[in-house]
Amino acid sequence: MKITIDAMGGDNAPEAVVQGAMKAVENFPDLSITLVGNEQEIKKYLNKHDRISIIHTDVVITGDDEPVRAVRRKKDASMVIAAQQVTDGISDACISAGNTGALMAAGLFVVGRIKGIERPALAPTLPTIDGKGVLLLDVGANADAKPKHLLQNAYMGAVYCEKVRGIKNPRVGLLNIGTESHKGNELTKQAYELFEEANFNFVGNVEARDLLEGVCDVAVTDGFTGNMILKTVEGTAMSIVKMLKEVLMSSLKTKMAALVIKNDLATLKNKMDYSEYGGALLFGLKAPVVKAHGSSDSQAIFSAIRQARDMVIGEVPQKITEAIEEK
Amino acid sequence: MKITIDAMGGDNAPEAVVQGAMKAVENFPDLSITLVGNEQEIKKYLNKHDRISIIHTDVVITGDDEPVRAVRRKKDASMVIAAQQVTDGISDACISAGNTGALMAAGLFVVGRIKGIERPALAPTLPTIDGKGVLLLDVGANADAKPKHLLQNAYMGAVYCEKVRGIKNPRVGLLNIGTESHKGNELTKQAYELFEEANFNFVGNVEARDLLEGVCDVAVTDGFTGNMILKTVEGTAMSIVKMLKEVLMSSLKTKMAALVIKNDLATLKNKMDYSEYGGALLFGLKAPVVKAHGSSDSQAIFSAIRQARDMVIGEVPQKITEAIEEK
Repeated sequence: MKITIDAMGGDNAPEAVVQGAMKAVENFPDLSITLVGNEQEIKKYLNKHDRISIIHTDVVITGDDEPVRAVRRKKDASMVIAAQQVTDGISDACISAGNTGALMAAGLFVVGRIKGIERPALAPTLPTIDGKGVLLLDVGANADAKPKHLLQNAYMGAVYCEKVRGIKNPRVGLLNIGTESHKGNELTKQAYELFEEANFNFVGNVEARDLLEGVCDVAVTDGFTGNMILKTVEGTAMSIVKMLKEVLMSSLKTKMAALVIKNDLATLKNKMDYSEYGGALLFGLKAPVVKAHGSSDSQAIFSAIRQARDMVIGEVPQKITEAIEEK
Repeated sequence: MKITIDAMGGDNAPEAVVQGAMKAVENFPDLSITLVGNEQEIKKYLNKHDRISIIHTDVVITGDDEPVRAVRRKKDASMVIAAQQVTDGISDACISAGNTGALMAAGLFVVGRIKGIERPALAPTLPTIDGKGVLLLDVGANADAKPKHLLQNAYMGAVYCEKVRGIKNPRVGLLNIGTESHKGNELTKQAYELFEEANFNFVGNVEARDLLEGVCDVAVTDGFTGNMILKTVEGTAMSIVKMLKEVLMSSLKTKMAALVIKNDLATLKNKMDYSEYGGALLFGLKAPVVKAHGSSDSQAIFSAIRQARDMVIGEVPQKITEAIEEK
């Protein structure tokens, strides 16, 4: 199996990317990795390995680039070359921790959609209290969704949970402003009807309040709402941690208590840190494309590589194609 | 000034409502309160007071009632009578901790809309790190909003912050999936253009991630998204607190540390508890209508009464009417 990685994407590139790649080839004997980016920079961190190769380019898509335009014009950018490797059948999957919008555009225009999927979806796994995590989709690939797009999101999420995460008959929930079937806006009301007739395990409307409680395995919503939820979870967690730190640093007494529970708090922080769950997956494309978090360290890159590998092994794009054809 | 309260609404009714009302008349010598509900039940908790009167009714709208139908059919329900008192000019404002949908319906059909406001908005104040709070609207009164509804939400929120909270030139943000002006779905893109031409202090798109950081005073969104954000904040905070408790109870060592910081953690919890900020306000109606949290204790009821009083003193409905006429 071969996976191509944009070595220049993310806040800690290329160091974290190179280190994550080295860890991955050590762990997975079947895996070859191609790193795309500035060869000199990459080599600073790379211990020579016969299953890691480099494609050199100096062109990079930055966070400031307008996604679609950048992908169309910067054909030699590390991210675009990584996607092109997949299209050309050289690689089985690609990964980037760079500009999210650009990676979605590269997925759409370079890798290409699965026939029958109208809009790809971006799907991170959010941490839940029970430690199992919930797949949330879409979080921004498609801001103006139609009911049928939500239906396709549901199928894609269910396929992934079943084939890769090994969850039998995964519970699919429709994110809504109430659990009753008649609740919601026009979009969710119509989607509810489609979901009721679909052949996945639809558990009904779920509220955002219960999301982190593990009320379902796949939480379906439109890209606008999903993005809002994702960022609200992040923002709320960040704010609470900040306030907790203030409390713990407020006096000598609390500082001493903080010292005692330091390690336990770190465990909690890791549990809430969604980068531990790997990257966000782009579903609906002909091959697995994984968006690693912008602030990924080597461990997060390793997780993203493992995810991409799992998606290839689980033949997720093929299974999605079958699910969409059968429905 | 006279305020009417649905004494039977909320998990702790009528006890918490009666106690909150008694505290309010003690604190505000200009205030008279009418409690609507079961007289016998109310009298169990009421110390006779010449500025608290009772209107007896046995009819109650429950959480299971379908809102619009309940308001139309149960004319003698405590919540409907409370709203009717406002319409009849007997009271200046009304409050309920009961069924949110029903209170919105009572506001719309009994109290009535301000001319020029197409859709009322429900607006809680969320806690922010800086302790100032952010007014979020709408959180569910209008699930399918149009750009002009968001514009009206912005005006209503700005008027409230200026007249009641005393914030000069309040910062109005448009909740969106990115801060750049071209970001968003069709709704927010169109709203952005309207906001740019409006005569309030528009600070541009704001992300949900920064909401609790106090990035604006008024955060505007549609009812569906707002409801999702509100419940995500609640759910995330609840989950973190739960996990924190687990961590602190995991060993003798952490239990002892927890004991030391117990009071400081309680302060943190109160800071995050949005019921401390009072109830959610229904804007766009001819008179102030306040939705107290369903789990309100007497302190939360007191806060809701204070808010309603502030809205009457600040002549918020009149000022909203003027702002809408002038725009």
